[in-house]
Amino acid sequence: MVQAEIGLIGLGTMGSNLALNIAEKGHTIAVFNRTVSRVDEFKAQAGALADRIIPCHSIEELAAAIRPPRPIILMVVAGKPVDDQIAMLRKVLSPNDIIIDAGNADFNDTRRRFAELEGTGITFIGMGVSGGEEGARHGPSIMVGGTEESWHRVEDVITAISAKYKGEPCAAWLGPDGAGHFVKTIHNGIEYADMQMIAEIYGVLRDGLGMSAKEIAPVFAKWNEGRLNSYLIEITAKVLEIDDPKTGKPIVDVIVDRAGQKGTGKWSAIEAQKLGVPATAIEAAVAARVISSMKTEREAAQKVYGPATGNIKGDKAKLFHDLELALFAGKIAAYAQGFAVMDAASKEFSWNIPLATVSKIWRAGCIIRSQFLGTIAEAFSKGPVTNLLMAPAFIEMMKEAHPSLRRIVAIAAEAGLPVPALSAALAYFDGYRQARGTSNLIQAQRDFFGAHGFERIGEEGAHHGPWGDYS
Amino acid sequence: MVQAEIGLIGLGTMGSNLALNIAEKGHTIAVFNRTVSRVDEFKAQAGALADRIIPCHSIEELAAAIRPPRPIILMVVAGKPVDDQIAMLRKVLSPNDIIIDAGNADFNDTRRRFAELEGTGITFIGMGVSGGEEGARHGPSIMVGGTEESWHRVEDVITAISAKYKGEPCAAWLGPDGAGHFVKTIHNGIEYADMQMIAEIYGVLRDGLGMSAKEIAPVFAKWNEGRLNSYLIEITAKVLEIDDPKTGKPIVDVIVDRAGQKGTGKWSAIEAQKLGVPATAIEAAVAARVISSMKTEREAAQKVYGPATGNIKGDKAKLFHDLELALFAGKIAAYAQGFAVMDAASKEFSWNIPLATVSKIWRAGCIIRSQFLGTIAEAFSKGPVTNLLMAPAFIEMMKEAHPSLRRIVAIAAEAGLPVPALSAALAYFDGYRQARGTSNLIQAQRDFFGAHGFERIGEEGAHHGPWGDYS
Repeated sequence: MVQAEIGLIGLGTMGSNLALNIAEKGHTIAVFNRTVSRVDEFKAQAGALADRIIPCHSIEELAAAIRPPRPIILMVVAGKPVDDQIAMLRKVLSPNDIIIDAGNADFNDTRRRFAELEGTGITFIGMGVSGGEEGARHGPSIMVGGTEESWHRVEDVITAISAKYKGEPCAAWLGPDGAGHFVKTIHNGIEYADMQMIAEIYGVLRDGLGMSAKEIAPVFAKWNEGRLNSYLIEITAKVLEIDDPKTGKPIVDVIVDRAGQKGTGKWSAIEAQKLGVPATAIEAAVAARVISSMKTEREAAQKVYGPATGNIKGDKAKLFHDLELALFAGKIAAYAQGFAVMDAASKEFSWNIPLATVSKIWRAGCIIRSQFLGTIAEAFSKGPVTNLLMAPAFIEMMKEAHPSLRRIVAIAAEAGLPVPALSAALAYFDGYRQARGTSNLIQAQRDFFGAHGFERIGEEGAHHGPWGDYS
Repeated sequence: MVQAEIGLIGLGTMGSNLALNIAEKGHTIAVFNRTVSRVDEFKAQAGALADRIIPCHSIEELAAAIRPPRPIILMVVAGKPVDDQIAMLRKVLSPNDIIIDAGNADFNDTRRRFAELEGTGITFIGMGVSGGEEGARHGPSIMVGGTEESWHRVEDVITAISAKYKGEPCAAWLGPDGAGHFVKTIHNGIEYADMQMIAEIYGVLRDGLGMSAKEIAPVFAKWNEGRLNSYLIEITAKVLEIDDPKTGKPIVDVIVDRAGQKGTGKWSAIEAQKLGVPATAIEAAVAARVISSMKTEREAAQKVYGPATGNIKGDKAKLFHDLELALFAGKIAAYAQGFAVMDAASKEFSWNIPLATVSKIWRAGCIIRSQFLGTIAEAFSKGPVTNLLMAPAFIEMMKEAHPSLRRIVAIAAEAGLPVPALSAALAYFDGYRQARGTSNLIQAQRDFFGAHGFERIGEEGAHHGPWGDYS
């Protein structure tokens, strides 16, 4: 009797694609789905790969179909469904089996589940998978958290199905318990910032320079050949060029400006706050999506306040150059924030996340893949990095780019065009490179009204101001 | 035998001052402190008020000293100490007694404690107290959460000790369980934003115009006579004027630019994220405090990148006018965010928070007290407000002020001076009043790579793009 090497529960879009990917790489896979009819349907649609798919109609059948010790991937909706599946699996699994949650889990849940399974003999892996449908089918970026031993037991199949960057698999073990899902969350937070900054630049081109989608498309296409080269810039150029078959208009012009979100951007902002790490560009991106959803309010507000003046003048070639560099500088600051959050989490949870590896496995398969991530990988490979803004390669790039970022933020502010993420990125940079900030005033205020104390320049300990009768 | 009307546990600075305040208003108060020696010391230092203070040396003595049903205020460090005290009190209290947590609690803990005490007969009140030491002693702003019935039982003493605004007590019942502590948290978040924006304007004056503290002080003093009139502007003018006795320099110039924080700013950012409400000005303020604490990194970064160019030119009178209005516009946006967060929480937790009342009890006693809060109270008194930016009085003010905010953000961006909270406020306004935003591009991207679907203008349902072979 043929036995599967691996199992998978949850034949939705992502789960089906991942199962086909696994089968295609030569592994026999047993599959199960809560709506059981889906199981046979899936095998029937699997074409040439059907031979390597064992459809199971119960969780017991699934367990029986896999050769122990069993690795079983869960690709179900995050939250309670994962806990439900784990509870069911515990009844049929044996010691040394591995449950792999490949959904978009909150890493706090992953940590809890990991702890709950400790001592049962069953091991847990939290695995972040990025790349959408296409990635799942043909090679996603895979971020693994769990014990190193459990990783080595699934390493072959996971690296086989992952994306490859110049032959290197974009899958890696990043640390214990929630490390993989945490990195995936921050990946998504960075993705929010990346997309928002692109949308802001698009807004300046559209509303500030009055350019059509067709005119904007080649601008992004050209940028994609330079330092901004990345999947997101590439698809920006593409979607701007495509027409709506129904109206003949550019498709972006018939799409409602109300963005959806699935929670990982919000999670990344919350975790950054909990860790006390500034992630203002990510927060700005999350806020922009929320504001986008308040369409009726925005329409009412524009009626009252009038539209942005919008009109931007000046030399176009210089402006395009500034826009390209502004986007690049904003990107550097946003990635600096995201990597700082991962660094802090790594310390907080003793994960020891290899940040060079994180950048490497993001170079292909995932949504934020870019040339830029190669540069980040190089920076982290050379030794500890306090902040990406202080890595030599980035110092050079940022020195060249930040003057453009400030010009664009200034131009957009004057024109009334919202650039929340770009201005947050600029403020982050300007605050970070200011040796003498303005928090001395805040400390004076806090001591004045709350006797919180302050440090004196060149002296130890806490001091108080001579407020006397003033306060 | 004299029996106390109320008890208090925790004779730190805030607890001692609150106890003296209560005694001064004619109420006999029984006090207890974990370090028991503090109890007699406190009575000994209470002067003329000592007669109304009953020092208790054990929790049993405290319970015996108060006339049932007993109200007992906890003013201990937030977190575990509160749970410890509640556990001890449960052993000595009787049905109908009320435990009042007056510390800076996380409202999630308050909700939990409220639920834990349900059915015991003992009631719980979560009470936010703002105003620092001075407020606690002479009249703080007090935000109460709990059952309405429990509020009425302590209303007399609470309103007696609270600040008064033109005779009206700055204390009120704001809703069930965590409502009071939640409002206090958002108060602090707004306070962070207020202080940060003042510090940013100070930075423009100091580093952009090269003004000394002595020259800046009268600028704030003058603003305090106008629309910015508030406690924080008033004390800003004062602290800028005061010299350090030791060096003879302005005190702000000998204070290290590293700001402390106690967590409530962070909490307000986290809760805003959880509720899905943009609070970017508050987030920027929290981030600015974190960046201020990274002093060594900032010094290293300035060495590498060089200082901000800083130099701001132009007509000074016009610039001062713009700075005043920019600060005012930023303040409006930050308060709009804070009130939107409270509104969302009120709905989420079915608190029914009276936002007009919140603004009213903030007009005196608390750190953010200002003339401005009177205008907010009026706006909310006139009926539901979707967003403060859409209340008629604020529309007029914002129309006048936002052009200055954009000029200042632009000037600061060009000069390299960090204005994170002001630029977040501007971006919020610009995003909010933009009827057609740029999230249509984000939706196109999301559908392109993840088949997430989008809405079409004027049509129902979810649609997909004609990506075909492109994606």
